[in-house]
Amino acid sequence: MIAGRRSEQGDDCVDANSGELQPNTEAGKRFVAIVAQHRDAFRERAPAHDEAASFPAENIDDLKASGGMAVFVPEELGGLGLASIHDWIVGLERMARADASTAIAVTMHYGVTRNLAGAWRAAVERGDEAAAQGPAGMLRAIAAGELVFCATATEAGTDFLRPQTTAEASAEGWSINGRKFFVTMSPIADLAVVGLRVREAGEEDKIGFAFIPMETPGLLPQDDWDALGMRASGSQSVVFADCRVPRESIQIAGEWGRWNPGILMGRTIGNVTLVAVFLGIAERARELALAGAQAATKTKLDGALASASGVQHLLGEIDIELAAARAVLGEAARRLDAALAEPGGGRPSLEVAHGHMRDYQAAKWTVNQSAIRIVSRAMDVQGGTAFMGHNELSRLYRDVRAGPFMQPFSPTETHEYVGQVALGLYPEG
Amino acid sequence: MIAGRRSEQGDDCVDANSGELQPNTEAGKRFVAIVAQHRDAFRERAPAHDEAASFPAENIDDLKASGGMAVFVPEELGGLGLASIHDWIVGLERMARADASTAIAVTMHYGVTRNLAGAWRAAVERGDEAAAQGPAGMLRAIAAGELVFCATATEAGTDFLRPQTTAEASAEGWSINGRKFFVTMSPIADLAVVGLRVREAGEEDKIGFAFIPMETPGLLPQDDWDALGMRASGSQSVVFADCRVPRESIQIAGEWGRWNPGILMGRTIGNVTLVAVFLGIAERARELALAGAQAATKTKLDGALASASGVQHLLGEIDIELAAARAVLGEAARRLDAALAEPGGGRPSLEVAHGHMRDYQAAKWTVNQSAIRIVSRAMDVQGGTAFMGHNELSRLYRDVRAGPFMQPFSPTETHEYVGQVALGLYPEG
Amino acid sequence: MIAGRRSEQGDDCVDANSGELQPNTEAGKRFVAIVAQHRDAFRERAPAHDEAASFPAENIDDLKASGGMAVFVPEELGGLGLASIHDWIVGLERMARADASTAIAVTMHYGVTRNLAGAWRAAVERGDEAAAQGPAGMLRAIAAGELVFCATATEAGTDFLRPQTTAEASAEGWSINGRKFFVTMSPIADLAVVGLRVREAGEEDKIGFAFIPMETPGLLPQDDWDALGMRASGSQSVVFADCRVPRESIQIAGEWGRWNPGILMGRTIGNVTLVAVFLGIAERARELALAGAQAATKTKLDGALASASGVQHLLGEIDIELAAARAVLGEAARRLDAALAEPGGGRPSLEVAHGHMRDYQAAKWTVNQSAIRIVSRAMDVQGGTAFMGHNELSRLYRDVRAGPFMQPFSPTETHEYVGQVALGLYPEG
Amino acid sequence: MIAGRRSEQGDDCVDANSGELQPNTEAGKRFVAIVAQHRDAFRERAPAHDEAASFPAENIDDLKASGGMAVFVPEELGGLGLASIHDWIVGLERMARADASTAIAVTMHYGVTRNLAGAWRAAVERGDEAAAQGPAGMLRAIAAGELVFCATATEAGTDFLRPQTTAEASAEGWSINGRKFFVTMSPIADLAVVGLRVREAGEEDKIGFAFIPMETPGLLPQDDWDALGMRASGSQSVVFADCRVPRESIQIAGEWGRWNPGILMGRTIGNVTLVAVFLGIAERARELALAGAQAATKTKLDGALASASGVQHLLGEIDIELAAARAVLGEAARRLDAALAEPGGGRPSLEVAHGHMRDYQAAKWTVNQSAIRIVSRAMDVQGGTAFMGHNELSRLYRDVRAGPFMQPFSPTETHEYVGQVALGLYPEG
Repeated sequence: MIAGRRSEQGDDCVDANSGELQPNTEAGKRFVAIVAQHRDAFRERAPAHDEAASFPAENIDDLKASGGMAVFVPEELGGLGLASIHDWIVGLERMARADASTAIAVTMHYGVTRNLAGAWRAAVERGDEAAAQGPAGMLRAIAAGELVFCATATEAGTDFLRPQTTAEASAEGWSINGRKFFVTMSPIADLAVVGLRVREAGEEDKIGFAFIPMETPGLLPQDDWDALGMRASGSQSVVFADCRVPRESIQIAGEWGRWNPGILMGRTIGNVTLVAVFLGIAERARELALAGAQAATKTKLDGALASASGVQHLLGEIDIELAAARAVLGEAARRLDAALAEPGGGRPSLEVAHGHMRDYQAAKWTVNQSAIRIVSRAMDVQGGTAFMGHNELSRLYRDVRAGPFMQPFSPTETHEYVGQVALGLYPEG
Repeated sequence: MIAGRRSEQGDDCVDANSGELQPNTEAGKRFVAIVAQHRDAFRERAPAHDEAASFPAENIDDLKASGGMAVFVPEELGGLGLASIHDWIVGLERMARADASTAIAVTMHYGVTRNLAGAWRAAVERGDEAAAQGPAGMLRAIAAGELVFCATATEAGTDFLRPQTTAEASAEGWSINGRKFFVTMSPIADLAVVGLRVREAGEEDKIGFAFIPMETPGLLPQDDWDALGMRASGSQSVVFADCRVPRESIQIAGEWGRWNPGILMGRTIGNVTLVAVFLGIAERARELALAGAQAATKTKLDGALASASGVQHLLGEIDIELAAARAVLGEAARRLDAALAEPGGGRPSLEVAHGHMRDYQAAKWTVNQSAIRIVSRAMDVQGGTAFMGHNELSRLYRDVRAGPFMQPFSPTETHEYVGQVALGLYPEG
Repeated sequence: MIAGRRSEQGDDCVDANSGELQPNTEAGKRFVAIVAQHRDAFRERAPAHDEAASFPAENIDDLKASGGMAVFVPEELGGLGLASIHDWIVGLERMARADASTAIAVTMHYGVTRNLAGAWRAAVERGDEAAAQGPAGMLRAIAAGELVFCATATEAGTDFLRPQTTAEASAEGWSINGRKFFVTMSPIADLAVVGLRVREAGEEDKIGFAFIPMETPGLLPQDDWDALGMRASGSQSVVFADCRVPRESIQIAGEWGRWNPGILMGRTIGNVTLVAVFLGIAERARELALAGAQAATKTKLDGALASASGVQHLLGEIDIELAAARAVLGEAARRLDAALAEPGGGRPSLEVAHGHMRDYQAAKWTVNQSAIRIVSRAMDVQGGTAFMGHNELSRLYRDVRAGPFMQPFSPTETHEYVGQVALGLYPEG
Repeated sequence: MIAGRRSEQGDDCVDANSGELQPNTEAGKRFVAIVAQHRDAFRERAPAHDEAASFPAENIDDLKASGGMAVFVPEELGGLGLASIHDWIVGLERMARADASTAIAVTMHYGVTRNLAGAWRAAVERGDEAAAQGPAGMLRAIAAGELVFCATATEAGTDFLRPQTTAEASAEGWSINGRKFFVTMSPIADLAVVGLRVREAGEEDKIGFAFIPMETPGLLPQDDWDALGMRASGSQSVVFADCRVPRESIQIAGEWGRWNPGILMGRTIGNVTLVAVFLGIAERARELALAGAQAATKTKLDGALASASGVQHLLGEIDIELAAARAVLGEAARRLDAALAEPGGGRPSLEVAHGHMRDYQAAKWTVNQSAIRIVSRAMDVQGGTAFMGHNELSRLYRDVRAGPFMQPFSPTETHEYVGQVALGLYPEG
């Protein structure tokens, strides 16, 4: 019943027939090509950094050299000029197949870069040279490999909308106090973007974002990253102890504890791309399962593991789940790209913004839960060897579990939120 | 925590923010608009036909009048000129929300029409007037509402590739004997397209398709359709008892019992669209669940059912599954449209053809299983009233179960097949 | 790899090796034996009653004749003397394999009988002849086939704890007004046990139960049962329009809208047994799937469907789910039997009573969801014939969906309730 | 709606109302009590051994001192006299809550002890003093803390029935060559029980078991255990290089590569108990989730995490799955105990033996898959802190993944095997 024919697919080359996500734009294709050229080096370095929980600074150096840190820098300023969120996702997914920690580390940098590029382009388009200058300088520095961002999203016992790290207004500017967790890539970043509760006398608390150089006094990296997975992501905690920044460092995003369209869109765009990392882990697990099934033999089968109906069944389960995971993430991104391409697309109504957040949450849930199952099934295909500490699948098993923790909406909140959006009962905060 | 704001969505209007599939092409939009204009009538007629297991001929009359039976007829020949498989799916999905039986009934007619349109266009493009004439005539008849097709795909105890209904060559043509099940829309069709085992002396058996007018002697409709669901689809069985057709009525598709690229693509295109019907049932169940949650009150809640966290949770489960179901089906269709738009796209390699079949199988599994769960969850939201015989959800519960039976690859075969494709171990037959 | 050996199991005989639930007590074994003797007759009558939505009164007559309506009547009073809830479940499970509608119909009668037997035995044990007399008379009438109960549990828009059907105190007794749905077996019952909101001047509303002869004026059966499934269960609605009953007809169970240990235990014992009906449907679906796989052949396989790895896989999924479903229900029942066997076991603390309700909810969820999936998988094994209206699996598919609607705690409430019990945050009502 | 009442349950005390497995026999209760007394010490030692992948020899010393290594040694010979497989499972489940690695390490020792006790009792019962002597000596040594067993079950590329580690007959006895993986507890064991392909001139290969002192020349522990989880289980590989043992060291179990009732029962009894370890991990995850939800607060909730409906929902999912997991494992064990209590119960027919193996596989699948999901959900409840390397849940997440690898029948084989047993198509090997 089964022909002898076998595809030529290697253990991790991109197989056009497999259904994996493909870039839509030229810049996206270049991004994917850049990632491909780093793949072997990243993959080779991954085990040692995972073991030591050390940050792979050499990966970032490679990305600086190849233009891979400047994917969202406009071409005019020396970058790749990427615009598509869909293709951002495709590139990250591919990077995660080589090293998920590196992929998750660079995402926030990309997000901040993209916002700067947007600010620059808007200023240029309305002819406001002054307003363009700041972003242009930063974007050129990024292209030159001189500026890397990290961003903070998480605190203990609270959520993204209700940061407890507080900026109090003072005569000279702001004094910031608090503690941020999971400050990914902070060990080598130059500048941190920090979500804050902004407090001024006589006003309601605001939510704001500060751009703070990492060497600022009172910004105290804790060098305490030692986690189950994503161990090479440099996600240490950072303490702010009377960290003083000038008044213009902080941009206000809205009321503290309350959704608005801007915050919803910012969180959606910045975080839906993280989902790509977990899709990439699933894709890599699939590659390893296929390679394992083709390489291994079993006495009982008198031949390759791949000939066993139960193995084929399990691989079928993987590919069916993967098809849905790819599609739902690709579609959420495509809808964002389409919306942003329309006039005013970046400033939708609250309802539409919740619709995009809902798309992100649906994609996040589907991809994360599928990815967790897919990695587990890939281990089932490989058998006991997948349980060894040095086995790549056992690292993927640890890395993939980071997915559900991503902000905002924890797995205890996702379903009710999505149901509320369906009912038009949008949560205020 | 929940704002009082509530969306204006009615119980079944299309909500642009909901994430449902949208047509990509102008012809697709017209198709969707035509379906929209029939919605209320179809929905109103559905319960009685479901009760009586009778075919809603008046729905087909309406579609003839509105151009809805001629969606694939080229504009030059009086039709809508639809080309996109994606948009075919969108239109069917919307039709299924009104009446799933009607949607599943017209699908095969659309598929045959589409093939004729392809044959006509190819002949015109190569300037072969003679070859264009036959298709042109049929296409004009379709546009005039004078020609409706049904198609046969199923027999007992065998599969699509191995029909036992046999055409034996004779001096005057062919004599056909056998029995076909699930011959949807046959009560009102003019012409049946019949899959056959074609037998000629001294040759290996072939698989072929015959175009046979329904009034042909020896073609014996059994008027025996009385099923759990899809009761208004007219899916009676048809017996062939020495049914004689001329030699030119049969087109050979390949060897009996053996996949080839043409058969794979034909089955994929013809049947992936059926999946849309089950997505449509799920969409309708969602509409009813939302409407129910918004309308119902409960003593315990002292208010609307929609305010209950458990109801929101369940609606969230529905929408998350639905997002993946929509995306995976939309993506499979988009990939087909993209492939067919390339030169030679309709005649791919065996590997690529299996890739499309795999996409279809992944979409079929995901959508069918999700749709079954979604209808069941919608019943959970509505509560005991959903169990009443006159309740629309109880009809959807019966209709939705038809999905897994669709050809080819039963739920006992799907996973192994998808796994084999992943391994490059393509089944021969 | 597969030996030729084949078990001798018929299509529905009890297979000791299969893992199905077995009675623990002698009375339980007799109950199961009684059910076995009715199996073929019940099964034969089922399709016609399903078609007509008529009540199979002849099944009840058979049960009266065989002692099957008197399983909980003490042996001293002419019954079977069953005490074990576990074995009650086993007997019902077997009855449901023959006809689920009949099994669900008799359950409430059994529950009421069991309560009467408990009251009688308690009175006898404390030597209170007067108190024993009433129950003894009813129990003897049951044993004589002269008394059949039905019970009401459901109203629209409210739950079990908050009935809106109200008994207002009057000079002569009570006047009852309201409407009950799903009054199973009411077409042939002699006496209805009716849950009520009991209202007396100057007091908080109570929840109470009335014993009302079916012929009482103002008790108006609606003859309106026409549902998706369980069509032969006689679950019509009953209207109460100034239905007057004497003062002693009503027993008070506690405060309206508020859980107490007695109500919790009553609901648990009365309703956990209903779960057995859905387990029985799943068991029957398994029998049909096995028989189908053994009997059917397929051209592609060149032999029995049972030899296909995908069919074996699906049957394996069925049996793994079934093992858990049987075990969780059997264990919940065993824990109830053990608790009731202890002194004071019938009057536990609120915490312990919630623990039993939690066990019931866990069993209900597991069994119902598994049973729905198992029936669906059995249809996958049988193929398209399972979709025919006359096919037994298509009836099981309709019947099995009744499970999630059973009282109390709908599928929108189950998980939160179970979580609250785990947290010790018991809901008050 | 939620009362303020809160249960007194501590973070891991046994809660009689929770539904967890309870011992049935007096010896079982003593076993559970012994485990309870070690709980805190084991739990305290676990993190360091997990970190270092070192074996907790001090735990075994504690168990020797408390009688916990002699649970299956008959009371007459100084042990606990445990007989029930069910209670063996309960004790292991509780031990796994303290340290899963230790629990999985001692299981094989218990299994061998149990077999010796059976041999001793049989000899005593038939009055065969000579045959009783050997087992009695070993059992006394176990009770004295002087004898600890390990056992081998796994090799690369083959399964339990087809070992490649071979004993070749020689003049003085046997020469053994090969490599065993996952030889749990071997770092401190005194004697290894080794599954072998036994080869004698002129005969079919047999499957046999050798008792080999760990210090035997040619038995070469590899000190190479460094795995994802169960890192303190000492599951190094062991090489056999011309390891010579006397002729009487090997007991023949049957033909190589072929099931027989004895091997089926041996594998079932020896391995179903391993499932208890993974149930224990799930129970511990539940304890931590509950404790986390009760202790944590969240700004958004303005109170305890436990008050969030989404948290309650997730805890409900945990408890519903746990109820089924406990029940299916408890029931499989109870059925084994019941069968073994009958005359000839230890030597059933092949069909019945496959029935017990099927029960084990159903329990294994249900418990392992549930346990994996439960640990993951517990992490969702705790939030990001559960992802930290020092967090107990992150160790449970690693440990729990060992479950599916347990012998025999991998997750690629389980469903087909269970389906074959249902069909009576028993695999020969």
